[in-house]
Amino acid sequence: MSILIQHVQHEDEVVDVYIQGNTINTIGDCAGKVADTILDGSHQAILPTFHNAHHHAAMATMRSYADDLELFPWLSEHIWPLEATLTEEDIYNGARLACLEMIKSGTTFFNDMYWHFHGTARAVDEMGMRAALGAVFIDMDDATRRAANREQATQLLEESKQYSDRITFQLGPHALYTVSKEALIWCGEFANEHHLMIHTHLSETEKEVADCIATHGMRPPAYLDSLGILAPNLTAAHCIWLEHHEMELLAERGVTALHCPTSNMKLVAGKFRYTDAQAAGLQIAIGTDGAASNNNLDMSEEIKMAALLEKHFTSNPTALPASNAWKAGTRAGAEMFGLHSGIIEEGALADCMLVDLNNERLAPGHNLISDMVYSADSACIDTVICNGNILMQERKIENEEEIIAKAREYKKKFQR
Amino acid sequence: MSILIQHVQHEDEVVDVYIQGNTINTIGDCAGKVADTILDGSHQAILPTFHNAHHHAAMATMRSYADDLELFPWLSEHIWPLEATLTEEDIYNGARLACLEMIKSGTTFFNDMYWHFHGTARAVDEMGMRAALGAVFIDMDDATRRAANREQATQLLEESKQYSDRITFQLGPHALYTVSKEALIWCGEFANEHHLMIHTHLSETEKEVADCIATHGMRPPAYLDSLGILAPNLTAAHCIWLEHHEMELLAERGVTALHCPTSNMKLVAGKFRYTDAQAAGLQIAIGTDGAASNNNLDMSEEIKMAALLEKHFTSNPTALPASNAWKAGTRAGAEMFGLHSGIIEEGALADCMLVDLNNERLAPGHNLISDMVYSADSACIDTVICNGNILMQERKIENEEEIIAKAREYKKKFQR
Repeated sequence: MSILIQHVQHEDEVVDVYIQGNTINTIGDCAGKVADTILDGSHQAILPTFHNAHHHAAMATMRSYADDLELFPWLSEHIWPLEATLTEEDIYNGARLACLEMIKSGTTFFNDMYWHFHGTARAVDEMGMRAALGAVFIDMDDATRRAANREQATQLLEESKQYSDRITFQLGPHALYTVSKEALIWCGEFANEHHLMIHTHLSETEKEVADCIATHGMRPPAYLDSLGILAPNLTAAHCIWLEHHEMELLAERGVTALHCPTSNMKLVAGKFRYTDAQAAGLQIAIGTDGAASNNNLDMSEEIKMAALLEKHFTSNPTALPASNAWKAGTRAGAEMFGLHSGIIEEGALADCMLVDLNNERLAPGHNLISDMVYSADSACIDTVICNGNILMQERKIENEEEIIAKAREYKKKFQR
Repeated sequence: MSILIQHVQHEDEVVDVYIQGNTINTIGDCAGKVADTILDGSHQAILPTFHNAHHHAAMATMRSYADDLELFPWLSEHIWPLEATLTEEDIYNGARLACLEMIKSGTTFFNDMYWHFHGTARAVDEMGMRAALGAVFIDMDDATRRAANREQATQLLEESKQYSDRITFQLGPHALYTVSKEALIWCGEFANEHHLMIHTHLSETEKEVADCIATHGMRPPAYLDSLGILAPNLTAAHCIWLEHHEMELLAERGVTALHCPTSNMKLVAGKFRYTDAQAAGLQIAIGTDGAASNNNLDMSEEIKMAALLEKHFTSNPTALPASNAWKAGTRAGAEMFGLHSGIIEEGALADCMLVDLNNERLAPGHNLISDMVYSADSACIDTVICNGNILMQERKIENEEEIIAKAREYKKKFQR
């Protein structure tokens, strides 16, 4: 498979881009290149796709199911009881809706954590995206559940090989307050043995920190470090309640912090100190979190939110400028998984989007990256390519009517 | 002119809606109604359009021209020098781009303040929207400029009659630090005499408050009250640095506060205390401010921002729930101008939109208002009607290519 995109804007120049297999082969003069598909990129710009750093895709069917509530009743009276009823088929339908929405808004990769691995894996595989999908660990210090979690992870590692290599298998110990010490240590060792990434939630609420000190005599990062799992293969969502030395510790260990500003604001978890964390050398990538706490999966909205919240919080209008927010929503999410994507250059994975420079939100066009961060919405995105395959063209995605019709059935299914 | 919208969802029922002239005539059984245009509303919901409460439409051509800067250099080195060069034709082109973007994102009314009245009025008239457009006052305590401002307002009041009655003429004294006491008093009297609304900026920055105390011995609301212009015909943008008794004073006088969360965050003006202001009885409507400080004009994004910022600021996830944010972005902006719009009911102005329930962001559809506030983007909006005329259908607007081509010329024109 090969694609030739002609006359497309790339960093203020108009060029041709040749994609061969799953890779960007040539940017510039593509004379003599023969392509299976030719796209006219006139009046379009080529940009890297978004990489959604923290997500629970299958929750898309819970969008707007329960909003504007206190955290505990929200979880205990609405989200958890609903989650307890979900089957693998429900997960598949939710994840398909999520993939559809992500592709429509220019995202080709997401870092996920949810139950029923195969439900999400099947959806991602069919939809043509990339994702890091995991075996969730929640043992609540129960030896039987722990053994079951371990067995499941071991089994899923094998079973995950049936899917496209766009799917990266990882471990998903939910959080230090739901996963026992023994299970966390096991996750660290199993991940090292099999070269897996680990995805967790860390220091999301003040209560988590207080409870960790009460139970383990340490704050959360020190506790995880004592178990040996602070390492470059750890991606940690939220990281809100960190002291400066903890940011430095996470940075030193090579952990990536996953910032979800909309979710943090909606659930009033607190504020991730982006500027401080960056100054401490911490790697940061931005994610939407699940649709139950956002309620969309739109990375262009999320990076705008991150930039605005940081300016507001620091009282500094120069904080988190557009170029940094853009990188945190594209390249940063790729880098933490060692993916050569989130960037348009020769040799990179052909994960890219074509935006319509004739969309009103990108006019007059003084600064495309500012426009993408502060102005764009999904309607600006015309074409999305992942792994050298066209997933969306002229805003149309294969099967979208069927996916949405299936998703709309959950309005009745989830009725209370 | 009449429009029959068949089989459309309205508040959880499927109904027909009959529009006659500029008014919603019937909601429900429309048997026997003859219409010039029939729209199939199957799989669509009818909703009121957004009313953008504070705006500078013509600045759309300055989108992403200068971002991530300190307020003073942003204004003095970038925005003001550029504004000084603008002609009425530039204003017309900017306002057309703004109208196009607003219609595409479901807005049919905006409360504006900018120079070159006729440039914006012509654009609004042609594009079919409603707007309150004004004669800007900035005299900087200079008697010559004051006289010129007064003369211009008097003249524009007459000249404004040449336009559609969708355009409401008002006075726009910029702010108490750019407009003299004499001019503010004159505005109040002239507005009373001619039954005009007044649009100003109030208590946007801490400096404004400190300077007002130093110059006039009073805080801004007390100063404006002493000049007799705190009244139901005053709409006041930002209202950030208010004490509780000032919120009560503004409420008692019937002033509407215009909340612009994105602009306030981007320029770090501070935080409008929404919950407190509402508790004090203040009327509040939400606006985008101009494209130079947002950088889009998307009210669905703006009301989400307002809801999230309020939750974050008050540490209360139940603060500013979706239903309130929705009202502040629709009905509230209509009410302050005495418009019977921003609501779908018989007898109301036919200012409405049809949203596509088969859009992925409105699926599964557990709560349409939550979906519109927290999830939707412009791609969900299929049709926009204002004053009984269809301005957008299947996301297409007449002349849009030409408007955008003209707007894109400003990329080169504004080059530094």
